[in-house]
Amino acid sequence: MDTGVTTFDLDGWMRGHLAHVEAALALWVVADAPAGLGEAMRYAVLDGGKRLRPLLVLAASEAVAGDASAALRAACAVELIHAYSLVHDDMPCMDNDVLRRGKPTVHVQFGEAQALLAGDALQALAFEFLTPADDAIPAAIQARLCRLLASSAGYRGMAGGQAIDLASVGRALSEAELRQMHRLKTGALLQASVEMGAACGAASDANREALAAYGIALGLAFQVVDDILDVTADSATLGKTAGKDAQADKPTYVSLLGLDRSRAHAQELLAQGLAALRSSGLPDVRALAALARMVVDRDK
Amino acid sequence: MDTGVTTFDLDGWMRGHLAHVEAALALWVVADAPAGLGEAMRYAVLDGGKRLRPLLVLAASEAVAGDASAALRAACAVELIHAYSLVHDDMPCMDNDVLRRGKPTVHVQFGEAQALLAGDALQALAFEFLTPADDAIPAAIQARLCRLLASSAGYRGMAGGQAIDLASVGRALSEAELRQMHRLKTGALLQASVEMGAACGAASDANREALAAYGIALGLAFQVVDDILDVTADSATLGKTAGKDAQADKPTYVSLLGLDRSRAHAQELLAQGLAALRSSGLPDVRALAALARMVVDRDK
Repeated sequence: MDTGVTTFDLDGWMRGHLAHVEAALALWVVADAPAGLGEAMRYAVLDGGKRLRPLLVLAASEAVAGDASAALRAACAVELIHAYSLVHDDMPCMDNDVLRRGKPTVHVQFGEAQALLAGDALQALAFEFLTPADDAIPAAIQARLCRLLASSAGYRGMAGGQAIDLASVGRALSEAELRQMHRLKTGALLQASVEMGAACGAASDANREALAAYGIALGLAFQVVDDILDVTADSATLGKTAGKDAQADKPTYVSLLGLDRSRAHAQELLAQGLAALRSSGLPDVRALAALARMVVDRDK
Repeated sequence: MDTGVTTFDLDGWMRGHLAHVEAALALWVVADAPAGLGEAMRYAVLDGGKRLRPLLVLAASEAVAGDASAALRAACAVELIHAYSLVHDDMPCMDNDVLRRGKPTVHVQFGEAQALLAGDALQALAFEFLTPADDAIPAAIQARLCRLLASSAGYRGMAGGQAIDLASVGRALSEAELRQMHRLKTGALLQASVEMGAACGAASDANREALAAYGIALGLAFQVVDDILDVTADSATLGKTAGKDAQADKPTYVSLLGLDRSRAHAQELLAQGLAALRSSGLPDVRALAALARMVVDRDK
């Protein structure tokens, strides 16, 4: 098995796969929804974002020789859940943010009510993506994808993590509590991306478990790096307001561990993720390995 | 075929089925979600509501001899979507309502941010209900239920209708435009309730089409009666703020047709629904017929 980045052209791999994802989103996220709703939905989803979650779905699906059509739908569905969560997160009653991906946030552009509805409609659309009526995707895969996405988006995943986040402002969290919050808030959907990719193919239980372990490590690493960048990068580079968590007195890995130990922790998590891939028994996990390295080495 | 209400004990039928629905919701809508989220979710769902949508699911499933376990899950899932839509609808950026089912609305009780999250988590939980991992429900039924629920909740259904509603305040709508708005906003989920019930059994295409036609008529009748009650009933009876649509200068059937023609229209729609049931070819549609009569004859 090879996890080496030297033998793998991640940029080329990403270019091709991102083109598919962008084209599918542009086609499937409808502009013809009534009364401006489609416009707000497209604004929230298109022309922005690193598309990390879709790339994880596609890489995991390829690692298990999964159904490419199911994987593309799953990739787009996960991105819709991510996009809706950002729309709702940015609203005045939550983080009250005005800048996202270098553009005004959805509620600034379209009003709060439309932003609320667009987020709601994007969540529903994610499950539509996963359940095409034409039977091109076996029902067992459709059901499994819905199950993974629903549980990672809901109270045991993203929404639950947001609730902990809300309740934690101004409170001192232990590292264990902080990890639990991020494991739900950001980690659950990243982990689900990997598991949904695996669900598109005939992975063994051992394959799945190794990929899930990779997903957990990657999800935590992502958040540690996010916290580091919130301190070290500027708003122009990030495309969103920098220094925001520190200002809001939110607990972060940096406030808890300091910058150096946070960086070291990100490297440890990367090593854990790569070790999980090595233990997976899958013949080619180079794209997954390269994506994990990208997550840890990114500067925005 | 018998649609007669004289030979059918609707109250007894409802008592038994409501007990199942309430018990399932109390069991499945989790209190142990983190940081108060579960409490807000339960508050939004339990101890209130007519449960019309769950009853439609169960009645339609029984009409096609459907899988009772799948139908109960579908019944609860539809109710979660309905409940989440009320939570978000009541928020200050939407209808800004403080009273619902005789209680303070969720954002009044728990704050806006928690209300937003609880609504989001309830939508995800609906799809969790439909996709249990134990294979007790065939994957084909799980996938079909998710498809019906997602499309009726999203931009082509409830969320789309809400967007039209938002855009229509203070504008004169034609009857056709008003019908289109309600067909999406309220009708789509009521129709989906009937279709999801039908999806729990082996209904023929003709069965399904007749039930869908019944669902469309019932959905419109429901809204016409809602508009009538907004004018004729008081807040204490309704358990929500009466006269609200008129105050907000929202177009309603009553503002468009007047009270008498609205009442006549509700009766026409009831007759259409009952005719669809008669044409369905199903042997026992008494519960569906009685529910339609109840919707039109209700005083709250």
